[in-house]
Amino acid sequence: MIALGGNALGNSPAEQLERVQKTAEVLTDLVEDGFQLIITHGNGPQVGVINSALEAASAAGTSPVFPFPECGAMTQGYIGYHLQQALANCFERRGLREIPVCVVTQVRVDPKDPAFSDPTKPIGRFLTEEEAKRLAAETGYTYKEDAGRGWRRVVPSPVPVDVVEFQALRRLVESGSVVIASGGGGIPVIRTEEGYKGVDAVIDKDRSAALMASELSADLLVILTAVDKVCLNYGKPDQVTLDRLSTRKAEEYIREGHFAKGSMLPKIEACMSFLKVRSDATAVIASLENVRNAVYGDGGTKLYYEPVYRKQLSS
Amino acid sequence: MIALGGNALGNSPAEQLERVQKTAEVLTDLVEDGFQLIITHGNGPQVGVINSALEAASAAGTSPVFPFPECGAMTQGYIGYHLQQALANCFERRGLREIPVCVVTQVRVDPKDPAFSDPTKPIGRFLTEEEAKRLAAETGYTYKEDAGRGWRRVVPSPVPVDVVEFQALRRLVESGSVVIASGGGGIPVIRTEEGYKGVDAVIDKDRSAALMASELSADLLVILTAVDKVCLNYGKPDQVTLDRLSTRKAEEYIREGHFAKGSMLPKIEACMSFLKVRSDATAVIASLENVRNAVYGDGGTKLYYEPVYRKQLSS
Repeated sequence: MIALGGNALGNSPAEQLERVQKTAEVLTDLVEDGFQLIITHGNGPQVGVINSALEAASAAGTSPVFPFPECGAMTQGYIGYHLQQALANCFERRGLREIPVCVVTQVRVDPKDPAFSDPTKPIGRFLTEEEAKRLAAETGYTYKEDAGRGWRRVVPSPVPVDVVEFQALRRLVESGSVVIASGGGGIPVIRTEEGYKGVDAVIDKDRSAALMASELSADLLVILTAVDKVCLNYGKPDQVTLDRLSTRKAEEYIREGHFAKGSMLPKIEACMSFLKVRSDATAVIASLENVRNAVYGDGGTKLYYEPVYRKQLSS
Repeated sequence: MIALGGNALGNSPAEQLERVQKTAEVLTDLVEDGFQLIITHGNGPQVGVINSALEAASAAGTSPVFPFPECGAMTQGYIGYHLQQALANCFERRGLREIPVCVVTQVRVDPKDPAFSDPTKPIGRFLTEEEAKRLAAETGYTYKEDAGRGWRRVVPSPVPVDVVEFQALRRLVESGSVVIASGGGGIPVIRTEEGYKGVDAVIDKDRSAALMASELSADLLVILTAVDKVCLNYGKPDQVTLDRLSTRKAEEYIREGHFAKGSMLPKIEACMSFLKVRSDATAVIASLENVRNAVYGDGGTKLYYEPVYRKQLSS
């Protein structure tokens, strides 16, 4: 199970089409090595652009209102198309018979998740305070000031509970397909009396990757990011890079506040949640360039399960 | 294989979410009857709105340029999500264990298709003649005057040659999944020396439905439309509705100019192309409301294969 970060995709369709070539080459190396891949990806910049364009069109009266989950679904089609095409082309050039296939994926969240009472994830364009307050009154959405850069709408970032299309994904994986799924963390849905229903939220794609890895019994979870290794005291003079990190040690470091919220912390937490379900598996955090080395143990940071009972007994 | 028309989806996300409930009920009736469904759908209004919004955002400098195939891919995610969710909810309410799954689908067209030298399919917003001529000079796109309502960009509507993800679709169908694929006729791609590549084009969704029906060995192709039966002299005092129509008769009627280009003609041609490949199969043209009756022979128009050799021998 491999989770692609923003730098595997880029910021515009033209850039994305170019970046996915490189990404596909790296992923195809792994397929050639015999790995069976399940791939997921982020969608932050993409869903932002699409949502903003449709909001502007709706404000101008040239488009109906497109809710946020619908915009997320669009990015699954758009990014999935590019990834699927790049992989198919790369597989063919290298004489591989694997078939890449992107599945539209809903991910269930819990409406009682505390995230719903504290929306934190900024989406869409920057607004003035006046605009934000007017829109808040009109729409009921929540807006927050974003680090001095203006006001933005914020949505909750709840924890993924399960993948609605899990059975279809399993069938595709079992048939040997290279599956692309849960793009952007998945289209967030809740259960209601009438069934599944979309909600305005952003699910962290690394958490969804960990969930899929658990549900589909992956042996390896790879989370790609801009830096090659997990660090302690990141960016400070006494920075330490980690080659290996146990779940027990990771919990200590988290308590000590080593990992940035909204950046490295959710990646490490995603790895830990996977390793707690599959204690004999491995999780890797690495850069796209270094992923193959990282998988074979010479690059990136390797996370593994270490039980906490010894510590508990001695304390 | 069932192809949903525009009235199965509606014109805005809110309307679509409502319409797909009704559509899902009808489709679930067929699943309860034991049919294994492969579903496709149009995307005309949806891709128009998304493409226009992104074009306007790009003109305003707030979005990069999104090519037309990318916008089509977005509609596959967006519409597929609604259909998939509505079907999953309906299946669950009725105690069915089938799994609906939407696959991002590329459909290959031939760059030598004559359609590429005569673009006819209008997309995007209406422009003034001045705007159209300026944009034509800037972008190289083709613009045409549209029935007195203004100028619009036109793209080619080539014939679909094959479904790139065909093998993945087959695996899903064989595993018993209810597959949603080739939305909007599929993302149009051509083969180049570097592999598949998107092109600005619109593939007729009924033709793609016929192609998928042939490739996946469907026994029945159902094309849904706003009217319940195929008619001769449509809309005239001497209008005749047809309960049954053989491929041989259909060819005669086409020569006599009975079926409207861009409306009933491509639907009939799609049925004929399917029946020529699978001569023991049946094709049905019907309204969504009447589809179950039509499938059992009491509604819609049933098309069947009739060889032309007798006529050839006698002429």
